Amino acid sequence: MGGGHGLYQTLVAARLSAPESITAVVTVADDGGSSGRLRRELGIIPPGDLRMALAALASDDEEGSLWAKTLQHRFGGNGALAGHAVGNLLIAGLADVLGDEQAALDKIAELTRSHGRVVPMCNQPLEIEAEVAGLDDDPRVIRSVRGQVAVATTPGTVRRVRLIPDRPEACGSAVSAINAADLVTLGPGSWFSSVIPHLLIPGIVEALNNTDALKVVVLNLSAEPGETQGFSSERHIHMLSQHAPSLRIDRILVDSDAIPTSSERSYLERAAAGLGADIVFEDLRTQDGNGHWLNKHDPSKLSAALMSLYRSARPGLTSD
Amino acid sequence: MGGGHGLYQTLVAARLSAPESITAVVTVADDGGSSGRLRRELGIIPPGDLRMALAALASDDEEGSLWAKTLQHRFGGNGALAGHAVGNLLIAGLADVLGDEQAALDKIAELTRSHGRVVPMCNQPLEIEAEVAGLDDDPRVIRSVRGQVAVATTPGTVRRVRLIPDRPEACGSAVSAINAADLVTLGPGSWFSSVIPHLLIPGIVEALNNTDALKVVVLNLSAEPGETQGFSSERHIHMLSQHAPSLRIDRILVDSDAIPTSSERSYLERAAAGLGADIVFEDLRTQDGNGHWLNKHDPSKLSAALMSLYRSARPGLTSD
Repeated sequence: MGGGHGLYQTLVAARLSAPESITAVVTVADDGGSSGRLRRELGIIPPGDLRMALAALASDDEEGSLWAKTLQHRFGGNGALAGHAVGNLLIAGLADVLGDEQAALDKIAELTRSHGRVVPMCNQPLEIEAEVAGLDDDPRVIRSVRGQVAVATTPGTVRRVRLIPDRPEACGSAVSAINAADLVTLGPGSWFSSVIPHLLIPGIVEALNNTDALKVVVLNLSAEPGETQGFSSERHIHMLSQHAPSLRIDRILVDSDAIPTSSERSYLERAAAGLGADIVFEDLRTQDGNGHWLNKHDPSKLSAALMSLYRSARPGLTSD
Repeated sequence: MGGGHGLYQTLVAARLSAPESITAVVTVADDGGSSGRLRRELGIIPPGDLRMALAALASDDEEGSLWAKTLQHRFGGNGALAGHAVGNLLIAGLADVLGDEQAALDKIAELTRSHGRVVPMCNQPLEIEAEVAGLDDDPRVIRSVRGQVAVATTPGTVRRVRLIPDRPEACGSAVSAINAADLVTLGPGSWFSSVIPHLLIPGIVEALNNTDALKVVVLNLSAEPGETQGFSSERHIHMLSQHAPSLRIDRILVDSDAIPTSSERSYLERAAAGLGADIVFEDLRTQDGNGHWLNKHDPSKLSAALMSLYRSARPGLTSD
């Protein structure tokens, strides 16, 4: 569960553990770029995060790679199409013809010989509205900021987000996938745009609390500039329980490097307890060719960490 | 060979005779609508006529029909995408990724489980420029009108068209297809936009004159409003020899109903002799459900007429 680049990395990690099946449950609150233009123009759910998940799950063979590349390809130039991803237009076109977004996503998954299924968290486009402090001289003034791009780039401090419409219905396939799963991950990703929106859908929280799956939150490696600038990891966890007080999680996976001191670690453990979760520290960060640490999860490290969590939580099961 | 709705009908007719292979050789001089916007914005060959040919050749099975419908689907609304056909965007996107228009068309033909191949007559976008009389008070004044839409809608009388750039190189696959064919048809279709442009490419005329195929021009049922308003069938034929003096054709297929009197028929035969062609009259027109005659070729009548022409020209061969 997630959206954007964070979900992309998680899906690559998921493929490495070669599970029986993978379902990407994807946020639909984006309003920027090609996605934003399409949702405004055609009234559809924003296709960008769905397209990226399809690309992440595409087969590595020639056919899958060509279609993944085509989905991700953006038109150049400076005309009406500039910046539109071909996959976004194809999702929109197929959804029009089939009368059904899910059927369109499944059709594209055939083209890409997908390793899994991509489902939206909700079948209608959603908006994010945030309560933001620090935009006025008086720091006590809270202003409301509307739209994912506006929230992601606000210079103020986001206190809380809500969805418009409020408490939307969960997508049935998303709920079924959560119910049937052995392992569910939430995050990493833009906390207010890609992670928390899932927790503002009552049906999704209910599915998470009812499933027998091991539920793992994967914390970001660092606060993004913009929406969670300056937020501690502890605050990221608090944000989850603040937005979904009933939510129960099993594990929170944190990069060991991000939280070096034992006092910080104990704060984190206390915050996690609020969700019923244990904190697990692992080396998760990726390095570039020159040995520099990047601000990105390494899919093989993430895959290994998730599999190890799963195996120790379900000692009766083997990985094959 | 042709373009637009005329070529669509011919391809449907071609499928009815179930030949070993079908190649659509398609004009690339369109500058209107979705195609025109894409060629201006992205500098590509206009995809619309190519897309329509792909749709005509798509398999009738569920998969082929879905993709044909998706290719032909146009975005609604009133934004930047309104009116764009999904297939045009897909051709443009795949051509960008594959670096090759023909590879893009062949890839889409896989999706549609195509009954044939679609090739452009030329690998670069072309413009039409016409010499038009009757636009001034003085009827002797000839003005030049540029662009396919402008030519197709001129209130004047088109005397002659040329391509810009002049004498472009023929697409290699188009030339090979003509060389390898048993039967080549040219027309019906908008005479100045979809038919004559083929004859302004020296490599195409040369291929037509060298092939062993039976070469059949299919005359329009009536003059289109606009570019050939008021033109007789005889004048349509004269236009071909005027634009390609060296062109040799075997048969010109004319709807018997269009040319009722024997004096008109003898004019037509004289004009055809200039191309080395015999005129053949057949009932070719389609009827609607209420028995009204429509201004469209009936694919089964056209298919039967073409097969009968082919069999009598090649008496040694059987149709199977």
